[in-house]
Amino acid sequence: MSQQSIPQQENPQSHDQYREEMIGRANVADSPELLAYYKELGKYKAGALWTIANKIEPWQPKSASVPVLWRYRDLREHVIKSADLVTPEQAGRRVVYLNNSGEQGMSTAVGLLYSGLQTMRPGEAASAHAHSSSALRFIMEGRGAYTIVDGQKISLAANDFVLTPNGTWHEHGVESDGSQCIWQDGLDIPLVNVLEAGFYKVHPELGQAVTETVDSSIALWGAPALRPQNVGWDQPYSPLFRYQWEPTYEALQRYARVSDGSPFDDILMHYTNPITGGHVMPTLGASMQLLRPGFVGKAHRHTGSFIYQVAKGRGYSMIDGQRFDWQERDIFCVPSWAFHEHVNTSQTDDACLFCFNDLPVMQALQLYYEEALTDNDGHQPVRG
Amino acid sequence: MSQQSIPQQENPQSHDQYREEMIGRANVADSPELLAYYKELGKYKAGALWTIANKIEPWQPKSASVPVLWRYRDLREHVIKSADLVTPEQAGRRVVYLNNSGEQGMSTAVGLLYSGLQTMRPGEAASAHAHSSSALRFIMEGRGAYTIVDGQKISLAANDFVLTPNGTWHEHGVESDGSQCIWQDGLDIPLVNVLEAGFYKVHPELGQAVTETVDSSIALWGAPALRPQNVGWDQPYSPLFRYQWEPTYEALQRYARVSDGSPFDDILMHYTNPITGGHVMPTLGASMQLLRPGFVGKAHRHTGSFIYQVAKGRGYSMIDGQRFDWQERDIFCVPSWAFHEHVNTSQTDDACLFCFNDLPVMQALQLYYEEALTDNDGHQPVRG
Amino acid sequence: MSQQSIPQQENPQSHDQYREEMIGRANVADSPELLAYYKELGKYKAGALWTIANKIEPWQPKSASVPVLWRYRDLREHVIKSADLVTPEQAGRRVVYLNNSGEQGMSTAVGLLYSGLQTMRPGEAASAHAHSSSALRFIMEGRGAYTIVDGQKISLAANDFVLTPNGTWHEHGVESDGSQCIWQDGLDIPLVNVLEAGFYKVHPELGQAVTETVDSSIALWGAPALRPQNVGWDQPYSPLFRYQWEPTYEALQRYARVSDGSPFDDILMHYTNPITGGHVMPTLGASMQLLRPGFVGKAHRHTGSFIYQVAKGRGYSMIDGQRFDWQERDIFCVPSWAFHEHVNTSQTDDACLFCFNDLPVMQALQLYYEEALTDNDGHQPVRG
Amino acid sequence: MSQQSIPQQENPQSHDQYREEMIGRANVADSPELLAYYKELGKYKAGALWTIANKIEPWQPKSASVPVLWRYRDLREHVIKSADLVTPEQAGRRVVYLNNSGEQGMSTAVGLLYSGLQTMRPGEAASAHAHSSSALRFIMEGRGAYTIVDGQKISLAANDFVLTPNGTWHEHGVESDGSQCIWQDGLDIPLVNVLEAGFYKVHPELGQAVTETVDSSIALWGAPALRPQNVGWDQPYSPLFRYQWEPTYEALQRYARVSDGSPFDDILMHYTNPITGGHVMPTLGASMQLLRPGFVGKAHRHTGSFIYQVAKGRGYSMIDGQRFDWQERDIFCVPSWAFHEHVNTSQTDDACLFCFNDLPVMQALQLYYEEALTDNDGHQPVRG
Repeated sequence: MSQQSIPQQENPQSHDQYREEMIGRANVADSPELLAYYKELGKYKAGALWTIANKIEPWQPKSASVPVLWRYRDLREHVIKSADLVTPEQAGRRVVYLNNSGEQGMSTAVGLLYSGLQTMRPGEAASAHAHSSSALRFIMEGRGAYTIVDGQKISLAANDFVLTPNGTWHEHGVESDGSQCIWQDGLDIPLVNVLEAGFYKVHPELGQAVTETVDSSIALWGAPALRPQNVGWDQPYSPLFRYQWEPTYEALQRYARVSDGSPFDDILMHYTNPITGGHVMPTLGASMQLLRPGFVGKAHRHTGSFIYQVAKGRGYSMIDGQRFDWQERDIFCVPSWAFHEHVNTSQTDDACLFCFNDLPVMQALQLYYEEALTDNDGHQPVRG
Repeated sequence: MSQQSIPQQENPQSHDQYREEMIGRANVADSPELLAYYKELGKYKAGALWTIANKIEPWQPKSASVPVLWRYRDLREHVIKSADLVTPEQAGRRVVYLNNSGEQGMSTAVGLLYSGLQTMRPGEAASAHAHSSSALRFIMEGRGAYTIVDGQKISLAANDFVLTPNGTWHEHGVESDGSQCIWQDGLDIPLVNVLEAGFYKVHPELGQAVTETVDSSIALWGAPALRPQNVGWDQPYSPLFRYQWEPTYEALQRYARVSDGSPFDDILMHYTNPITGGHVMPTLGASMQLLRPGFVGKAHRHTGSFIYQVAKGRGYSMIDGQRFDWQERDIFCVPSWAFHEHVNTSQTDDACLFCFNDLPVMQALQLYYEEALTDNDGHQPVRG
Repeated sequence: MSQQSIPQQENPQSHDQYREEMIGRANVADSPELLAYYKELGKYKAGALWTIANKIEPWQPKSASVPVLWRYRDLREHVIKSADLVTPEQAGRRVVYLNNSGEQGMSTAVGLLYSGLQTMRPGEAASAHAHSSSALRFIMEGRGAYTIVDGQKISLAANDFVLTPNGTWHEHGVESDGSQCIWQDGLDIPLVNVLEAGFYKVHPELGQAVTETVDSSIALWGAPALRPQNVGWDQPYSPLFRYQWEPTYEALQRYARVSDGSPFDDILMHYTNPITGGHVMPTLGASMQLLRPGFVGKAHRHTGSFIYQVAKGRGYSMIDGQRFDWQERDIFCVPSWAFHEHVNTSQTDDACLFCFNDLPVMQALQLYYEEALTDNDGHQPVRG
Repeated sequence: MSQQSIPQQENPQSHDQYREEMIGRANVADSPELLAYYKELGKYKAGALWTIANKIEPWQPKSASVPVLWRYRDLREHVIKSADLVTPEQAGRRVVYLNNSGEQGMSTAVGLLYSGLQTMRPGEAASAHAHSSSALRFIMEGRGAYTIVDGQKISLAANDFVLTPNGTWHEHGVESDGSQCIWQDGLDIPLVNVLEAGFYKVHPELGQAVTETVDSSIALWGAPALRPQNVGWDQPYSPLFRYQWEPTYEALQRYARVSDGSPFDDILMHYTNPITGGHVMPTLGASMQLLRPGFVGKAHRHTGSFIYQVAKGRGYSMIDGQRFDWQERDIFCVPSWAFHEHVNTSQTDDACLFCFNDLPVMQALQLYYEEALTDNDGHQPVRG
């Protein structure tokens, strides 16, 4: 919770640490009578709202997460090394996760999003499981990786975006003639945990039979603005499980030719559920954006948590006044309500950023707010 | 978060405290090599998933909240006393909040729901404010209370259910010829905070002008299955702000005459947004239920957090194996995935339970799960 | 069809009768060569668009229907007499239908709406049937009438609005201790016929067993902004089958106290499907409106066909420049795109107009257009 | 209307021509008393329902249209010749329309659908107009044709499917370096006319300025399951105006590799609105289907009207017991509730059928019904 980041004062007797001198806000000084009253309330599992009102109703969001850039050159060798240290059988999944908190044991990459880098070697396969969390993959390197989702085998190639939605049986592996593979996992685990709705099941046979043609979801649902007549679908997530890199990159290039783009994001496309035109899953959204050569974005901020992976090119992002230089495969995050602006430092090559986020949650619950930076021509001052 | 309830082991070096002996779950023993590896990962704001996987992916939800019954006879005098201790100006709002946690400073009544008991004296008025949280009231006692929501004045009478939705300007008061009033507030503050989307504004004039007829929303939207032609509405919450007790109680009685009811809830009606037929607000739902004389409910459990207030009658609820006896104005909560069953102990009078909850969130995010207890003819054994 | 109202020229050889002297419209004079060409095209079931383009693409709608007022004092005795002439068994249903056309055998009251006045005597019952048409009733006089819809018996009282939706089994009767009853039927039969989707079935047992409590739909769905928890509904029409007069009239009076009303319709409420907040059936909508004493409406016009019955009071309507004076139980129609304005001639009593229409069709197909009369302070000149 | 096809009896005095000898149907014999009564009712613009009930409520739909095959080898020369006979300025649009009726002046190709073949020569351009009807094109032959829709220029190539939705300004032309072009127009004109909602406007400047890049809708909306971030859309029709043949044909081939197809339609894909996943326009839907070599479909029937154009290959369709042999560019129709089955007579090449229809209407109004033929292994007997 955001309030967890606010340091607690030493004196446990004090109840007036959140006072604010403004009409309409709580501003009550401790007194012996009040402290006795607070103590009495505590006996009945109750408290006085004015002692915490200003804390629990902040003027604007202050994320418990900080901006972080995870350099792939830092993490890659450790990810690869994990394959020497543990087997998929021991580990369940062999993943190095991203930790936005200083503490051990927290699992948040930013906000209520989890992310990790998973690796598998040729011939390895992990057991099948299902959970109420929603999951996605973004493929980073290697040949021969696959996922099986509810009996459908899906091939994974670099820069592909792949779904393993809430409630589906899924398992991962790498073909024996492939190479060691690495991909990024994205999940809503922290969200599902704070909502106290996490369920987990191991497949009774540990693995699924493949019942459909490989990548059949692309054959059925991957065509532009076409819907197969004879295929039913009543799930709350996209029937298309694999969004391939090439058609996505081509689409961005076509879009770039006819649009001025956004001052903040240049050329950005959301991956959609072709059945509804909306987000791919109920709790996780994703997008790919292209920053044209020399693009210098302006700053804005919005609610919601966002994790980026650099799919192509190099540049930097200013997030909450800090500069983060990035190149292909680096990962960084933008916490809720942090100003951010993106720059493609190449004058010749475009840069592409994959992103996943909790936008579907913020929109469904009517908690999405957005604001452009108007000072300084829309650019943040660099913090000292 | 649910994992916060799991006690941390003493040894900060240990990383294998969550091991499970089951195929498909993480089961890696600490070794010097691994401990060195974990330490190295920590430098890069990363960690090994298998050290926390079983913790962050539980088999089923284990709420951080516990069942609690707040007896009105315990709280009432303290609520009334608060009016001697602080003014609305000092306190912002003069509220005794319900605290499900042992710690000071937490604001959760159950799950991610906040609740408190607010009191105002005749002639008092609090300043107007707005926030991104959604709020509701359930009126407990007193005459002359009112709320002003976006310029519309609303009268508050006992057992009325009233909305002050996300983003609306609102303020409360009691007419000078009224009596000291008490009502229950319900908000989604903890949810909005964990989603890092909390905004708060004080009204520039501190109070609103009343621009519409008192209770005009009832005149426009409170008729059964009728929609006023000439009234636009594009907000994501109900245009009906006050749901009066009498028509609600009559509706329950009519429903009871034609229905066998639910084995768990007997005769329950959800308050709805008449524009959509759905929940009253994007993050908070509410219902009123009638337990017929002698009704003995069966046990079930579901995700989501639920706070009840007894609007009428007496009885008890078994929650997670504990019996809670309740009477009019008592408040109790059912945490996520806790089995619960309700009993009306009177053979002659019906009992009514008001309830508010985060069902709209669980449904919108596809995280609502439900299960009936099948053992023991559907009744929980009482815990020792 | 609207083009049917355009008189055909005598000379069957002529093909240039629809020429218009305006750029962008067809303007081709007949010539021997062209006439030969047209004849040749005819052999292949084809024609030249320019010979009919201006006819089939009019500048604006010109309804095939005319404004009509059916006076109840004219029709009532004939309706009652029908009970002497035929039995329900012979007639199927004993109905005098409203005929907007000069021809025998057409069944249109206005546009693609059908309407008729049905009568039944005490103790009579008609056999049960179902059809793909949607039907509604508005009750005019008598005691003891009922309808059975899919096993649910519904009582009919004066000024009640009742549904027998598309596909439901339904049958009508009058209790033996009742009196001769008359009600207005409204159906979408002409629409369903032009869409070539009319199906009709006679109930295999000729009558239904009553399986639910009388008027149970009111007990379940007739409460304001409340939804019964335990009642499923997946039909595309309202689960509330009877909309009673009293709560409707009270709702209009309450609405009138807080609203200026519409300049065209004063105080109008649409009957809604409480599950969706939308229209009661997919093809038929309905409303009740209250004209306050002395109300003088302004003129507007819109697409869609509308049939009114005077539920209370007296006044007149100007429709397409003609004045129609009405009193209780009179029926009149407003054809598509005809200007109309309503006046309550009483300075002391309100007047109420029931109306049913094809608004759901026009809206679903995006064919609803509306326009206020701006000339002459919004009032139509009376036609000579 | 369907009843128009029922021959009227000679004797205008007779009112009992629709009698049926079945309980639950009208069965009243004329008598002098009744005839007098009917005459009296006629004076008040009324009639006795039982004289027409069996006519207006048929047991099942009987379309006013008949199955027709329009051979392109018959029509093509006449279409081309029209360019010698009239200019676009004279004709408005130079179109040979398909006429399902024997009468001159009707404009129905089947049911309430209009269709025609339009031709333009290099350098020709027609003036811009807008109408409340929805329109589509299917391109048949020629180079250099274009349409401008609301300022966006769209290129037309063979087998492309193109939208000019309701209310949009649109105009057609052929570049001066192109060749004479022919395309099929499809519109809902008869539907809009029976609904009395037809409006027509000529563009005040007679032609539009091109304000967007050619085919920009493809760049923005033509990518699979991707949505441009920065492009608003609030129209009730697809933002994608051109559905190109190549990606459509490739999509069908991919679909064919993973699916058994439908026993009636083999491999069929609906063109969709990528914003909603639904039909392309509110009143008109369209699809492309692939019949694999040797495919022999089974018979079914459904409500709604369907017009097919052969985009590729040859075969035949059995419609209402008649065999229609077709080859590329032939057009045929299937009336409402007519049994139909399709056969690809080639054992080596696939066949493709473009189709447009009023399915969105039938579905929105809940009037879509479907039935498979079960006799004779699902094949219709050939009619004598």
